[in-house]
Amino acid sequence: MAQSRPQKIYDVVVVGGGPAGLMAALCLTTYGFNILHIDERPHPTTAGRADGIQPRTLEVLRNIGAVSTSPVPGGAIPGQPPIGGGGLAKKMINQGVRVYEVAFWDPTPTQKLARTSRAPSCPEFIDVVDNYTLLLHQGLIEHAFLDEIETRRSVLPDTAPTPSDGVFRPYNLRDCRTLSPTSDPLSKTHPVEAIIEHGDTKATYTVRSRYLLGCDGAKSHVRRCIAGGEVGDGEWQGKITMQGSATDIIWGVMDARVKTNFPDIKYKCLIHSRTEGSIMIIPREAGLVRFYVQLQTTNDGKVVSIARDKATQDICIARAKKIFEPFDLEFGYIDWFSVYQIGQRIASQYTLDHRIFLGGDATHTHSPQAGQGMNISMLDMYSLAWKLNLVMKGLARPEILLPTYEQERRGVAQELLKFDGAYSRMFSGRGPDATQLPNGVDPDAFIRMFKQNAFFTSGCGAVYGGNVLNALPGEAIVQENVFNPIGCKLIPGQRMTPGKVVRIVDANQVRLQQEIKMNGAFRIHVFAGNLEQTRPALEKFGAFINSPRSFFNRHRAAPGIQASIIDAPAALIDNVGGRDGKQQRRHVFNPFFTFLTIVATHWYQWEIDDLPSPLRLYRAQVYGDAVFDKRVPESLQVAQTAPGANTTLATAAAPLHKKYGLDANKGAIVVVRPDGYVGAVVELCEQGWEGLNGYFGAFLKDAERERAPVRAPPPSDYGVPVRAVL
Amino acid sequence: MAQSRPQKIYDVVVVGGGPAGLMAALCLTTYGFNILHIDERPHPTTAGRADGIQPRTLEVLRNIGAVSTSPVPGGAIPGQPPIGGGGLAKKMINQGVRVYEVAFWDPTPTQKLARTSRAPSCPEFIDVVDNYTLLLHQGLIEHAFLDEIETRRSVLPDTAPTPSDGVFRPYNLRDCRTLSPTSDPLSKTHPVEAIIEHGDTKATYTVRSRYLLGCDGAKSHVRRCIAGGEVGDGEWQGKITMQGSATDIIWGVMDARVKTNFPDIKYKCLIHSRTEGSIMIIPREAGLVRFYVQLQTTNDGKVVSIARDKATQDICIARAKKIFEPFDLEFGYIDWFSVYQIGQRIASQYTLDHRIFLGGDATHTHSPQAGQGMNISMLDMYSLAWKLNLVMKGLARPEILLPTYEQERRGVAQELLKFDGAYSRMFSGRGPDATQLPNGVDPDAFIRMFKQNAFFTSGCGAVYGGNVLNALPGEAIVQENVFNPIGCKLIPGQRMTPGKVVRIVDANQVRLQQEIKMNGAFRIHVFAGNLEQTRPALEKFGAFINSPRSFFNRHRAAPGIQASIIDAPAALIDNVGGRDGKQQRRHVFNPFFTFLTIVATHWYQWEIDDLPSPLRLYRAQVYGDAVFDKRVPESLQVAQTAPGANTTLATAAAPLHKKYGLDANKGAIVVVRPDGYVGAVVELCEQGWEGLNGYFGAFLKDAERERAPVRAPPPSDYGVPVRAVL
Repeated sequence: MAQSRPQKIYDVVVVGGGPAGLMAALCLTTYGFNILHIDERPHPTTAGRADGIQPRTLEVLRNIGAVSTSPVPGGAIPGQPPIGGGGLAKKMINQGVRVYEVAFWDPTPTQKLARTSRAPSCPEFIDVVDNYTLLLHQGLIEHAFLDEIETRRSVLPDTAPTPSDGVFRPYNLRDCRTLSPTSDPLSKTHPVEAIIEHGDTKATYTVRSRYLLGCDGAKSHVRRCIAGGEVGDGEWQGKITMQGSATDIIWGVMDARVKTNFPDIKYKCLIHSRTEGSIMIIPREAGLVRFYVQLQTTNDGKVVSIARDKATQDICIARAKKIFEPFDLEFGYIDWFSVYQIGQRIASQYTLDHRIFLGGDATHTHSPQAGQGMNISMLDMYSLAWKLNLVMKGLARPEILLPTYEQERRGVAQELLKFDGAYSRMFSGRGPDATQLPNGVDPDAFIRMFKQNAFFTSGCGAVYGGNVLNALPGEAIVQENVFNPIGCKLIPGQRMTPGKVVRIVDANQVRLQQEIKMNGAFRIHVFAGNLEQTRPALEKFGAFINSPRSFFNRHRAAPGIQASIIDAPAALIDNVGGRDGKQQRRHVFNPFFTFLTIVATHWYQWEIDDLPSPLRLYRAQVYGDAVFDKRVPESLQVAQTAPGANTTLATAAAPLHKKYGLDANKGAIVVVRPDGYVGAVVELCEQGWEGLNGYFGAFLKDAERERAPVRAPPPSDYGVPVRAVL
Repeated sequence: MAQSRPQKIYDVVVVGGGPAGLMAALCLTTYGFNILHIDERPHPTTAGRADGIQPRTLEVLRNIGAVSTSPVPGGAIPGQPPIGGGGLAKKMINQGVRVYEVAFWDPTPTQKLARTSRAPSCPEFIDVVDNYTLLLHQGLIEHAFLDEIETRRSVLPDTAPTPSDGVFRPYNLRDCRTLSPTSDPLSKTHPVEAIIEHGDTKATYTVRSRYLLGCDGAKSHVRRCIAGGEVGDGEWQGKITMQGSATDIIWGVMDARVKTNFPDIKYKCLIHSRTEGSIMIIPREAGLVRFYVQLQTTNDGKVVSIARDKATQDICIARAKKIFEPFDLEFGYIDWFSVYQIGQRIASQYTLDHRIFLGGDATHTHSPQAGQGMNISMLDMYSLAWKLNLVMKGLARPEILLPTYEQERRGVAQELLKFDGAYSRMFSGRGPDATQLPNGVDPDAFIRMFKQNAFFTSGCGAVYGGNVLNALPGEAIVQENVFNPIGCKLIPGQRMTPGKVVRIVDANQVRLQQEIKMNGAFRIHVFAGNLEQTRPALEKFGAFINSPRSFFNRHRAAPGIQASIIDAPAALIDNVGGRDGKQQRRHVFNPFFTFLTIVATHWYQWEIDDLPSPLRLYRAQVYGDAVFDKRVPESLQVAQTAPGANTTLATAAAPLHKKYGLDANKGAIVVVRPDGYVGAVVELCEQGWEGLNGYFGAFLKDAERERAPVRAPPPSDYGVPVRAVL
């Protein structure tokens, strides 16, 4: 493609091409939006920087999946969305190395350096499929994102032209602001104005958009623009301030190949010397080792940090060899070297007007050692994107939904900073009051802290509090004994834990949490329990969903608006199966909701077509609960012969109902948000689904009464039609 | 690359570009040989043909792995072989669909067609990681092979030029034979002569090679050449005959997209109608369904097969609709259609002189419905290639090793034909005596047979009898109480079943059976049990291996000869770890053997460097036995605190020792052949390793006394140096 110029109007402008910006671009492209993505760097990352992907991030990447554009014989397949597998995650997993264990090395009374403890990087109690940290170079991660964005953009019917990797580079943001409404209709639909400048030619462009996302790092220019701070007055002043502090502890970071007799060179190791400071090492792809080296010297028995401007690669190597004593450590090829100063800061606000949002390092900075930064930054944008999708498509009330972004994500960032501050200071041998610890690091306290925080650092512990999206006790719509049934282990504000089930339509053993790929839809899981008991309730629930007053029929986008580019076409649902033509016609596909039915009764004993509409219409999303789960070992015990089935059933004890703590005699409905978080759990009864009507009604618009009229797409001055996704 | 011409001299000529020929080419390329691969077809398969990959085949494909040629920062990584992951298998898995269950549909007293039973395609008792059949188009499989062969060829230091996909097409074999030895040295090293002809230009080339493999299908021309039959005298005459028979039962086979209300359209289904014949359907990638349709009509109440030349696609569609009644079945896009006649034949011999070998359809033909043909054909060549590798590199005695190919693989083919004959006749509604069954198919008997044969059809039941490679009781070298310890569940002549372990060097949870990729080496698994008890035996075993009289030092190829292109360089083993420099130098790498050490004592309680040489030198192949296995649920119970480890051990009960039935107080040595089959199991004691000396001595040459002198590479008349791998 020839040199592309930015257009004048976009749905969203994304500033910054790092992991946060790329996640924003990938999600918004999946939702079908036209975005302008700029980065001030001329190229993606080539060396160094972040490298750790945590279990929850891998789960999310698997859920994003991969869009396939390879042609199939006989042309496109009716009803089959162009998506499959855990592509994005698998690509990274194939390229990276895995850390399952962390080793702690400390001085002991008899040895200069000895392994004093080990801990699983993701202990057994954390219920996650990828129970390890994946390590690979940020450049490989960025390229995987760029490739997938490119593929998805090619599926969009029409988009503005972009450079070959999808990101306009090098482009700087000169200014951005939100305009007040005027008589110009564009001021209502596209109130954000950004002025961007080409890094070389200095050509400037003024761009209008609905939203703008500042993913431009710790020194975010977007943040400065909306905070109102001036250059020179300190970049963290203005209406948005960065709260927190830095320390004087300087670290060097290095990617290198080494030769050593240190036995744990392929582990993540946390190494404390008696007086020379600390090191963290992490194995990396391509035989590299990542070193985080505390840069200090001992002067007259007193520990002194090395000044930041004096911290060279040679000094870093010399310190590393010193800390590794008595082990040999020889350095070969060095891929990258950098220096950083530990600090923890968090933005006082993530947005001023809910049109311009900040995320990633623009909102929180901390030490890299906990391997959290890239993860939490990506997930910031993953969490924001689906909310923008619902708002931009006219489905959700922006004033209610959009504030939940800051509320949820700032909470997680605060949690991270609290942990990281204590962790990195202690790793550097400082007390909670920032003073030097008398005997260097206290290994026991440090190891205890590490283990206590494993749930959080895995990403699985990013827990949101009660709000309009998370129907926890105390929220207005939450009735006791209807929401959050007793014994239920799925908790609103937390991710849905993994579960393996049998997909009836093809008898494949699949992971329930990965069955619906990120497509902008709410996932309504109907845990149908034992059909003998629950059949009447299921019938009533089906009739309710198909009634005009159900959340399913009340909250709809304008006709023709899809939730994402990977929506299964409506044809999939209306053409197959079902005994009752009339009932089928009454269920008109709504891409913002999808139904998954999980049945405890062994799947040899009933048929998909026995289920009421609409559940049976989602044929490919009906499951039997009969796959062994090591967390529910008692389910392995049960074996029985199904009447008339001429076979023995290997497992029949509904392990997933058990694991989730759901009563198979009553059944339950579990609403999972488009980001995989549990939103609400109710009993499978009339009060339950009426409760869900209340839940959705609190943040979604009523299609009949409130939906904004579909507007014509705004004109494009550059002669290229801009696609408006309402 | 410009049009390549065949050279005059190769190590091996492979005739046929289907799955068997491709497997041969891939393995022989991996072992570093220069091959001429010809196929009479101008292109790889584009539609139809075989499509089912069975669990054992997937296991093999995972073990073949994938070679990576992507450049790494800082240049090649010392000591790291260019291989990783389960590439070839993963590529196919990503493209295909999975069949976990088979449904049986039959007429019942009340219904024209009803599901009468179901069965797992790979029942729980079969211990395999991929517990499903993978379905994808043969063309995709061939392309995956071609890509991987191409990548591996690019790693070879020098090879003869080939066409872009590695296969000379279209080339026919005109003749092939083995020449008697003359004074010409080439007649001793390269006694096979083949005359090949370009399909279009009719240019002929005479090629000399050490071996020639006939993978040219049921009408194999290679077979005819060596059998001595003439055109016109019936192609199955001569010194090699095809034994068996055909039936008059005609089947149509079709890949199509359909619209139907038949609920199990995404299952593998075996459907019997009352009078209209039978159908098998299999789901396929890209929304296709494979149909096998019995082509018969009812004439005056009598069932009559449709003549083969009258069997059109339209008739096939009409029959399918009829058999599917009362369900609707509409056909859309048809990707492929063909007709076949059921028969079972097996070659009386697989070779005449152990220089020209037959495999795949050239040696056995049968019905396609059991999904076995492609699998067994690939595995024929997989089994032959490692034996040729040992022989061509001067390590093995050809007269002892090469006959095991026919002995092992013909046995499996006979087993297949026995099953297939009974199965396909019964599926067609015929009795064992080929007469029409009075009431059509007997569903109960058919279903019983299907289930009984699941172990075999999964590929895991391809069991070899005792011979020089499989140290079963009764073999000359097998001493009671030393070989095959009581309780041991690993059986010579059967594949090593899966086991998950912790790789100590990086604490990764890995599958033991996939740790050594197909590299031509024997895998010596030292099950070290509890170190407290076994340490003295381990020390003695180490000293034995490093002594000149051990099998490890006795059986060596000439210096510089590698076992395969993916060998880890010797540097990997000599440079790292070990406390005792002297001991290390005594262990000189031998690429035809590798050591894996699996320790029952929890891995937090010992160090790799505690193990004796050579075990500790294979650092990356030392494992802790502490990963939960659902087949050994009792191992989950045990939790203990390791002394001084400051942590609780989640599992410590050595599940893999238990699963394999090995006494952790004694230890054992398990020899696994280069193809993943168990060769010998002995106790970890002096008699045990002396027994292994006897085992290897029976088919390998003694390096000092018997190794043939290294010959200069034969000259190439076309001016391109031909690389000789001795």
